[in-house]
Amino acid sequence: MYIVGAGPGDPGLLTVRALRLLESADVVLHDYLVSGDVLASCGPLTHVIDVGKIGHGHQTEQDDIERLLVTYARSGLSVVRLKGGDPLLFGRGAEEAYALRSAGVPFEIVPGVSSALAAPAAAGIPLTMRGEARSVAIVTGHCAGRGRLPEIPFADTTVVLMGMSQVAAIAESLIAAGHACDTPAAAVERGTWIDQRVVVATLGTLADAVATHRIQAPAVLVVGETVRHHAQLAGAVWCEAARELA
Amino acid sequence: MYIVGAGPGDPGLLTVRALRLLESADVVLHDYLVSGDVLASCGPLTHVIDVGKIGHGHQTEQDDIERLLVTYARSGLSVVRLKGGDPLLFGRGAEEAYALRSAGVPFEIVPGVSSALAAPAAAGIPLTMRGEARSVAIVTGHCAGRGRLPEIPFADTTVVLMGMSQVAAIAESLIAAGHACDTPAAAVERGTWIDQRVVVATLGTLADAVATHRIQAPAVLVVGETVRHHAQLAGAVWCEAARELA
Repeated sequence: MYIVGAGPGDPGLLTVRALRLLESADVVLHDYLVSGDVLASCGPLTHVIDVGKIGHGHQTEQDDIERLLVTYARSGLSVVRLKGGDPLLFGRGAEEAYALRSAGVPFEIVPGVSSALAAPAAAGIPLTMRGEARSVAIVTGHCAGRGRLPEIPFADTTVVLMGMSQVAAIAESLIAAGHACDTPAAAVERGTWIDQRVVVATLGTLADAVATHRIQAPAVLVVGETVRHHAQLAGAVWCEAARELA
Repeated sequence: MYIVGAGPGDPGLLTVRALRLLESADVVLHDYLVSGDVLASCGPLTHVIDVGKIGHGHQTEQDDIERLLVTYARSGLSVVRLKGGDPLLFGRGAEEAYALRSAGVPFEIVPGVSSALAAPAAAGIPLTMRGEARSVAIVTGHCAGRGRLPEIPFADTTVVLMGMSQVAAIAESLIAAGHACDTPAAAVERGTWIDQRVVVATLGTLADAVATHRIQAPAVLVVGETVRHHAQLAGAVWCEAARELA
């Protein structure tokens, strides 16, 4: 049983270890954050199961997923649990590892390229830059209790995963914490995917820009001065294609 | 010309794109954070140059590196600039990209698995965990001005890259900011490398533990409740070998 990071979406950003496991897997159980291009790396006889259809990460459905993992892991087949980005950063990979451990099933965790870094990168946005940004905060906008926002650490660059349902509240929270309204901000939809879209705005205008361009999940928000590099570096980063809106 | 993330050190954690570029490169210019196992992925005729020998990231030497990159890039050869981890997170990748851009040299940036995530992972430490840690701060302990520590955002999990020369000051700074002395803390030396070493302590005892076990750069510090999972998950993460000290 393998808990594997699928990376951000571009198949070239799979790890070598992940590709080898996908090519030889009997069964792959993936969530909705995994791109079709990555799933195309599975062998022709691999049984590919979208467990994202079970739910949207609520705990009941998470229990169902964990039961399914244990059942498959005990089947004697080569089973990959494929998770978008990195399995141990907002991926519930550790929870699933504990479920397997409780069931006495051996497993291996394979780190992946996180969307928290690669989605901004694919939009030409470095998370740090000498003299400009030397701290990064990574948070999720997806909360256990609906409507409650997480505390966002005050950093030079802020990255928000799964924040699309709360863009306005997140921007307000960052402004209330002391970030300037005109801080550059971007939303990167399907970062590194073939149909990636990027919207660049400011903290004050981000929610409107996201609404105008109908940016949808999965998307990564990034806020900070380094967003300005987008204009210079966007075309230079490896990805199949990038289409820019604003 | 390619600016490529080498990942944390384990060759299985190279991206597929990076591996293909290394296999076909005429010249690879790498820094000291890149492991021998990763460099072994280069083709037999590849000219491998350690530019880490030029200096330790000070600006004069950085200028020399950038001049070297431009010279090689103009040679017509297939040239890879290979950087530990991810090139756009404390990797100076953006600076080197601008140097190439100013010189009119086309280039491509390839994201990699960051040591900020993979070194803790290889020690069995998830950066987030439901109900326990839902914000992450990533900073560097390496400062432009010697002795000056960066502001560290207050997050559930703190990751410090290049902090080995200032462990005591970093721990004091975190305690002064309100983190409890008994917060679990770890140092991961050469995370995912064949000779990886892990020391687990608390924020209050981290500097002593690092000194006792002579943990040396490259190493990643991680502070937060999720360090506790180390004992349960350490053996489960993909890497060639992991030796535990404490």
